[in-house]
Amino acid sequence: MTDDARLSHIDDQGRARMVDVGDKAETSRVAVARGEVHMRSETLRLIQAEELPKGDVLAVARVAGIMAAKRTHELIPMCHQLLLSLVQIDFDLTPPPSPGGLAVIAIEATVKTKGQTGVEMEALTAVSVAALTIYDMAKAVDRGMRIEAVRVAEKRGGKSGDLVLE
Amino acid sequence: MTDDARLSHIDDQGRARMVDVGDKAETSRVAVARGEVHMRSETLRLIQAEELPKGDVLAVARVAGIMAAKRTHELIPMCHQLLLSLVQIDFDLTPPPSPGGLAVIAIEATVKTKGQTGVEMEALTAVSVAALTIYDMAKAVDRGMRIEAVRVAEKRGGKSGDLVLE
Amino acid sequence: MTDDARLSHIDDQGRARMVDVGDKAETSRVAVARGEVHMRSETLRLIQAEELPKGDVLAVARVAGIMAAKRTHELIPMCHQLLLSLVQIDFDLTPPPSPGGLAVIAIEATVKTKGQTGVEMEALTAVSVAALTIYDMAKAVDRGMRIEAVRVAEKRGGKSGDLVLE
Amino acid sequence: MTDDARLSHIDDQGRARMVDVGDKAETSRVAVARGEVHMRSETLRLIQAEELPKGDVLAVARVAGIMAAKRTHELIPMCHQLLLSLVQIDFDLTPPPSPGGLAVIAIEATVKTKGQTGVEMEALTAVSVAALTIYDMAKAVDRGMRIEAVRVAEKRGGKSGDLVLE
Amino acid sequence: MTDDARLSHIDDQGRARMVDVGDKAETSRVAVARGEVHMRSETLRLIQAEELPKGDVLAVARVAGIMAAKRTHELIPMCHQLLLSLVQIDFDLTPPPSPGGLAVIAIEATVKTKGQTGVEMEALTAVSVAALTIYDMAKAVDRGMRIEAVRVAEKRGGKSGDLVLE
Amino acid sequence: MTDDARLSHIDDQGRARMVDVGDKAETSRVAVARGEVHMRSETLRLIQAEELPKGDVLAVARVAGIMAAKRTHELIPMCHQLLLSLVQIDFDLTPPPSPGGLAVIAIEATVKTKGQTGVEMEALTAVSVAALTIYDMAKAVDRGMRIEAVRVAEKRGGKSGDLVLE
Repeated sequence: MTDDARLSHIDDQGRARMVDVGDKAETSRVAVARGEVHMRSETLRLIQAEELPKGDVLAVARVAGIMAAKRTHELIPMCHQLLLSLVQIDFDLTPPPSPGGLAVIAIEATVKTKGQTGVEMEALTAVSVAALTIYDMAKAVDRGMRIEAVRVAEKRGGKSGDLVLE
Repeated sequence: MTDDARLSHIDDQGRARMVDVGDKAETSRVAVARGEVHMRSETLRLIQAEELPKGDVLAVARVAGIMAAKRTHELIPMCHQLLLSLVQIDFDLTPPPSPGGLAVIAIEATVKTKGQTGVEMEALTAVSVAALTIYDMAKAVDRGMRIEAVRVAEKRGGKSGDLVLE
Repeated sequence: MTDDARLSHIDDQGRARMVDVGDKAETSRVAVARGEVHMRSETLRLIQAEELPKGDVLAVARVAGIMAAKRTHELIPMCHQLLLSLVQIDFDLTPPPSPGGLAVIAIEATVKTKGQTGVEMEALTAVSVAALTIYDMAKAVDRGMRIEAVRVAEKRGGKSGDLVLE
Repeated sequence: MTDDARLSHIDDQGRARMVDVGDKAETSRVAVARGEVHMRSETLRLIQAEELPKGDVLAVARVAGIMAAKRTHELIPMCHQLLLSLVQIDFDLTPPPSPGGLAVIAIEATVKTKGQTGVEMEALTAVSVAALTIYDMAKAVDRGMRIEAVRVAEKRGGKSGDLVLE
Repeated sequence: MTDDARLSHIDDQGRARMVDVGDKAETSRVAVARGEVHMRSETLRLIQAEELPKGDVLAVARVAGIMAAKRTHELIPMCHQLLLSLVQIDFDLTPPPSPGGLAVIAIEATVKTKGQTGVEMEALTAVSVAALTIYDMAKAVDRGMRIEAVRVAEKRGGKSGDLVLE
Repeated sequence: MTDDARLSHIDDQGRARMVDVGDKAETSRVAVARGEVHMRSETLRLIQAEELPKGDVLAVARVAGIMAAKRTHELIPMCHQLLLSLVQIDFDLTPPPSPGGLAVIAIEATVKTKGQTGVEMEALTAVSVAALTIYDMAKAVDRGMRIEAVRVAEKRGGKSGDLVLE
């Protein structure tokens, strides 16, 4: 980050605006975002027990995340509209590493487009809404859940090239 | 949590459904949710420098969070529609505690309604979308930001009474 | 239907308008709507095979129907906004009655509210969007599917009393 | 349909996802969908009587169908966003073929785009929402209406070439 | 307006927030808003000519205004959600008072609710979107149209009592 | 305007439809729209006083206008969806020219896209919603505000070439 780095959505006079991407090339772009829902061991067990025959908690969270990705520009004010060519959401369930510890559902969203801006906001939105949906569906049995570590893991395509953060 | 605790959105056969709240009393309900955006020290400085004269990054994030709270039921599949009587979002900016550490913008959303279900999902959604908006507006200078510790802090009203978690 | 029956959304001069429901009592209201997706026998088998381990086609259709019910007033121009207290969607899968016949997925949506207008449009919308989602997810293997017999089956509450049509 | 036909929205492990269309060519695509609303003879007469001077029931249904086509990706979870270049909706009104029979309003939606996926879901959604709107505006005089035979009639463009089903 | 009048959406520290209406009484409320579209005489004639047999320009504008009223809280950030019991839109067409003058389509929206806040924003939004729709449908023949005099004409109900401004 | 000028959204039989833009070239397009909010001198002073330290009324109106521009096709029935590459909103505040006169906030929205149709509706929608937001946030102190002179100022790109109206 150079000394004269500036926040891209703020113009010379500090006013919010959408960045003009009209001159950017249309290239294939991919972003991967990740996040976690931390919960009691028993909460994870209940989700998994339901998961085995029907899979509904995670199935609903997956649908919610995919649908939210497509509406990112309605939620994030300065985000450009994009036509997403893929949204995929994966879950990884981990019981507590030691007794009394917390269980974790890790969420990973992969989003692709061919367009003028990157899709990391779409991937982050998919992860966030999938996590909120898990919270909503399990909150009757566990009020202490937390959404943690929502971040961009990879970003490919675009002028700045590939960026693999983890 | 008793042994027979069940996930409230899953019916006897494991199918997702909205919980029937038709017989619940309409009471005043409040929820407070909190979350954090972790970032480089320089990123916080840029947001604050902009903040002093114009305040736009946080102003935009505040608007985004308020608007998202009103659309929670469109994002979270099993969430009931509610008429919110208040949505308020506050930010607290903390520079790194020691050199080389991370700066933190803490976000707190307070949501009120008079209705048949609680508003913790609305408060959590407000925090999440405000955090995503901060990420979006600062991502040109800091790709490594993380959204952390999104959780419910307080919940008042409703059958289960008041719940102060922190 | 009396001779002077009139279409309720059309005023004296034939202009569309929302009907004024401000003087109607708030009562508990339930509507049940039903519909069918007709498909090839093999298409049903594929959905069921997927259904057994994971259930995703119907799980996604269920989520889509529930979410659409909450947005009925955005789709149907003269429909009033309502706060739904329950949306539930059930599927019933029937193989062809005889070789060469068509298989059927029957969809039933139950919607409840406490409000000033009925919820049959919400139930019909839930059925329609669930059916469209099944079509979407199976269309790669069966272009000839049809959505049939979308109708109101029951309507309870409100001035006109209970109405059981089938 | 070959033996190994698979439902395109379900991945190897049965999880829902949006199909990756990033490598598909952008071609001109057209889809025509059709459907019917069956109603009492007197209901059709009332709609037509209103129709002659003002045309509002069908005019409102046409607008509703066009607007819904543009929001298909918000309703159908695995549907890709598309920029539609044309949505057109036509109605054909047929009185009962014999006394005591049912009258029919046939609905046809034509949708065009230049993109990477077909537009049959958009055409089917336009037909469904137009039909639901007719139901809504006439339901005060006829509770027994049914939406029937919603199906794709034609599909042009794309890898699979032209498909004329009726 | 007293000396200490304050903008109601701005709190002590100048931050935007939704006003807390949780303690306001639920009363019947009505708002009437008006506005005008100014256009060339020939443009009005074309709209009217179409209007006589089919009425579509104004019919479409009416539907657009009604649908927009129901989504006001999604557009205006600090607006509360409300369940509208009536939205009605009327048009009045006036040719130029003298040769070479401008023709006017006057728009009036009446909105009713039973709730805790007034509905003037819903009425103003209905007028604005109806006006924009007229512009959109006539812009191919008249680029110089203007939307003028969008304002609240009446406001009834609520703590401040009735207010008839014109 | 020639004698046979026709309203582009109305087909041969007067029915509303989206105009087919499938054969139009994708070109860079810009539209600038303007509008005004007229208010009491004291109202402007209050907005400005808030503006100096925090700027929230105009900041919120700017965000609302930008977000509305992206949803124009959901509001205006016959409007095509477009991917906007820029939305920018500027305000100009003018105190009353003479004592007792009205103060004016002038709004200008600039919208760019690369697509098959122009973006004047998006620019007009941005101006209208920004104006409505100013009204909403100041209405507690000034019920007599008016939105005036909403019009297209410039339109560049597309078949009809550049058009500078003021």
